[in-house]
Amino acid sequence: MAASAPSSSPSSLSQLALGAPLRAEFPILDQQVNGRPLVYLDNAATSQKPRVVLNAMSRCYTEYNANVHRGVHALSAKATQEYEQAREKVAAFIGASNCREVVIVRNATEGINLVANTWGAANIKQGDEIVLSVAEHHANLVPWQLLAARTGAVLRHVRLTPDKSQLDMDHFRSLLSSRTRLISLVHVSNVLGCVLDVAYVAEQARRVGAKLLLDCCQSVPHMPVDVRSLGADWIVASSHKFCGPSGVGMLWGRYEVLESMDPWMGGGEMIADVHLDHSTFAMPPTRFEAGTPAIAETIGMGAAAEWLQGLGMDRVHAYEEEIGTYLYERLAAVSPRVTVYGPQPNGPRGRASLAAFNVEGLHATDVSTLLDMAGVAVRSGHHCAQPLHRELGVSASARASAYIYNTEAEVDRFVEALTDTIKFFDDMHGGAA
Amino acid sequence: MAASAPSSSPSSLSQLALGAPLRAEFPILDQQVNGRPLVYLDNAATSQKPRVVLNAMSRCYTEYNANVHRGVHALSAKATQEYEQAREKVAAFIGASNCREVVIVRNATEGINLVANTWGAANIKQGDEIVLSVAEHHANLVPWQLLAARTGAVLRHVRLTPDKSQLDMDHFRSLLSSRTRLISLVHVSNVLGCVLDVAYVAEQARRVGAKLLLDCCQSVPHMPVDVRSLGADWIVASSHKFCGPSGVGMLWGRYEVLESMDPWMGGGEMIADVHLDHSTFAMPPTRFEAGTPAIAETIGMGAAAEWLQGLGMDRVHAYEEEIGTYLYERLAAVSPRVTVYGPQPNGPRGRASLAAFNVEGLHATDVSTLLDMAGVAVRSGHHCAQPLHRELGVSASARASAYIYNTEAEVDRFVEALTDTIKFFDDMHGGAA
Repeated sequence: MAASAPSSSPSSLSQLALGAPLRAEFPILDQQVNGRPLVYLDNAATSQKPRVVLNAMSRCYTEYNANVHRGVHALSAKATQEYEQAREKVAAFIGASNCREVVIVRNATEGINLVANTWGAANIKQGDEIVLSVAEHHANLVPWQLLAARTGAVLRHVRLTPDKSQLDMDHFRSLLSSRTRLISLVHVSNVLGCVLDVAYVAEQARRVGAKLLLDCCQSVPHMPVDVRSLGADWIVASSHKFCGPSGVGMLWGRYEVLESMDPWMGGGEMIADVHLDHSTFAMPPTRFEAGTPAIAETIGMGAAAEWLQGLGMDRVHAYEEEIGTYLYERLAAVSPRVTVYGPQPNGPRGRASLAAFNVEGLHATDVSTLLDMAGVAVRSGHHCAQPLHRELGVSASARASAYIYNTEAEVDRFVEALTDTIKFFDDMHGGAA
Repeated sequence: MAASAPSSSPSSLSQLALGAPLRAEFPILDQQVNGRPLVYLDNAATSQKPRVVLNAMSRCYTEYNANVHRGVHALSAKATQEYEQAREKVAAFIGASNCREVVIVRNATEGINLVANTWGAANIKQGDEIVLSVAEHHANLVPWQLLAARTGAVLRHVRLTPDKSQLDMDHFRSLLSSRTRLISLVHVSNVLGCVLDVAYVAEQARRVGAKLLLDCCQSVPHMPVDVRSLGADWIVASSHKFCGPSGVGMLWGRYEVLESMDPWMGGGEMIADVHLDHSTFAMPPTRFEAGTPAIAETIGMGAAAEWLQGLGMDRVHAYEEEIGTYLYERLAAVSPRVTVYGPQPNGPRGRASLAAFNVEGLHATDVSTLLDMAGVAVRSGHHCAQPLHRELGVSASARASAYIYNTEAEVDRFVEALTDTIKFFDDMHGGAA
């Protein structure tokens, strides 16, 4: 019943000692769903959390929970120390030379909105151009639409290559001009899995004097990201996608850029001196962290960053390349009716360990519903990328996305369940005909 | 050595069955700090979390963690259900008739900034007046300063009564006019402990046609707050101050007001349809919840709201009135050199179970540092209320703030440690003289 297995090598996978050996760290994975062992392949939506992260948060709440930065008592001093150490761990994880370049936000979405409402509001004027792409997540489209509506800026969108597998870099280059103020692009697409040529984009940004923001939600969890060599001015990522808790994320910015930005939200923490009619503001990153932060969650994010760095992001990426290739190849071999979006895994820039797909004649929601009956969790919908789905000529897709704790056996389970699903609908439709 | 105990009645306290009987629910309280049992009296900065809240978050992370609203698989369906049930629990806790009136935010600070950047940006014009007070937390000052700087609006500040114990309601009334667009005031002051006469304020707001926002950070955790009878248009509160986790809070708004507000942050979740050049937006509350929310933390906030409602907020308030009165009276009796800010506890509007104070000749930071040596956690500083401290003629104060798990024995420990602290500095200064 299962499609034939392609050429991936289990032995090299096991040498990386990821996958099965990690699963004991993730208590949630050991459960039955609909009477079958859970196969969690919805990691591009959110990842699971290892014990070390859950324990770090639990220790905060049961041993030293207190508000940060404002108290001299022992619990507050400990909470402040752990909170700021978490910032350092996140900085180290992304290669930032200075932890003051790391702003703690709720999620990547807030990070982009923060840049749009501070740097954007101050620097984007009528007629200025912002270069995005048709493959952006809504979080990298809507904030710029709102800014453009206020300022009269023009949005330009990099289109896909003719095979619709990735961004067309020639088109990207053709969009750039002296009017380009900002380029904001997704590093790794959450639908296509394609990987941006950041070196080229950064070089072109410098050429035209534009700032560069990268949506790293799908790269920071999965590959080495080093902001010192990336060439971006800002990157954003969400903790919950890289083994950390929900409710927290990061905006990294070059310090001189952060320093040039006015505050956005006003409140406690972000101020220097408050008078009734005016205030002066703290230096970054504090300037952008109004109110009591997500203390335990930031500490959890720091633990996740440290844990992933301990695994080694080269090793994580190598594992994901292998399991991602296995996923792609097995999925593509299920049936000629299966379309997997994005580039081939053996292409020059590789692809992420996720596979958005459709089965001719079936709705993505029906596919994911039946997979769920077999214990296999994949997502269906537009994945917050409606314009991209329009480009692909569909309203929705199903998406299986693997992470470091997934195994080839799970990919096999997914492929078998998908094969069963297609057969189920074929039989039903055949029976109804 | 301890000052004489005043008239409070332990028997009525014990009848409420709060305080000591609750402490087993709060694992963090059972620890030594600097060799002494911890006395945590920094609850106005952040509260501790009961097991039921920690367990709710732990269950999310270890049993059904998944992204919400976007998936059909079992974990996502469960996470979505729990997330939306948490919204219902918060709505029930504050008496909202419709859980769609509850917007999940990071903290109260974000809630105020959200109103300032949506309703405020659309409705506040040059010359319009916003009525605040000198007793506001920075979170209810700085967002309006930023808005005023953009719009040319005028900020007016309610002053204190001549004894500086609370807001001067005659002055408040004198500030109102047809130019008043918004009144935004603190329900319970985090420094004075005074309680706003909301019925009067709401009546006056209606009289002049102004909107009313209430900062309920220090009321929602401590007394019954019923938005149906309050008369406000919006209230804000932070989860971490009412037994819930950090990183999450609530903005409640009357639905027709929320409906009239444009979105603020753009991204996933808050949209209806996204095109490359424009988008349409979801109805409230989703319109204001861009990106993956603080899922487990919202569930924890819901558990906290449900747990407090189970205790009964009338009972919570009764307990806090008693222990707050005991705290105030014992503290005021320590020495004539002790000034406790805010109204007398036996006044017509009562006061919160917090006491900001100074000891003549001692710096608040030195006081709190020495209290910490005795295991007693109080806060010192401006408590994010610099203008209020200027009004009080000081740059800082120490603040002891009690909650439902604190006991009279802890207040005694605090008073003894403060007495020792004063004696220590007196001896030191005497020795140096």
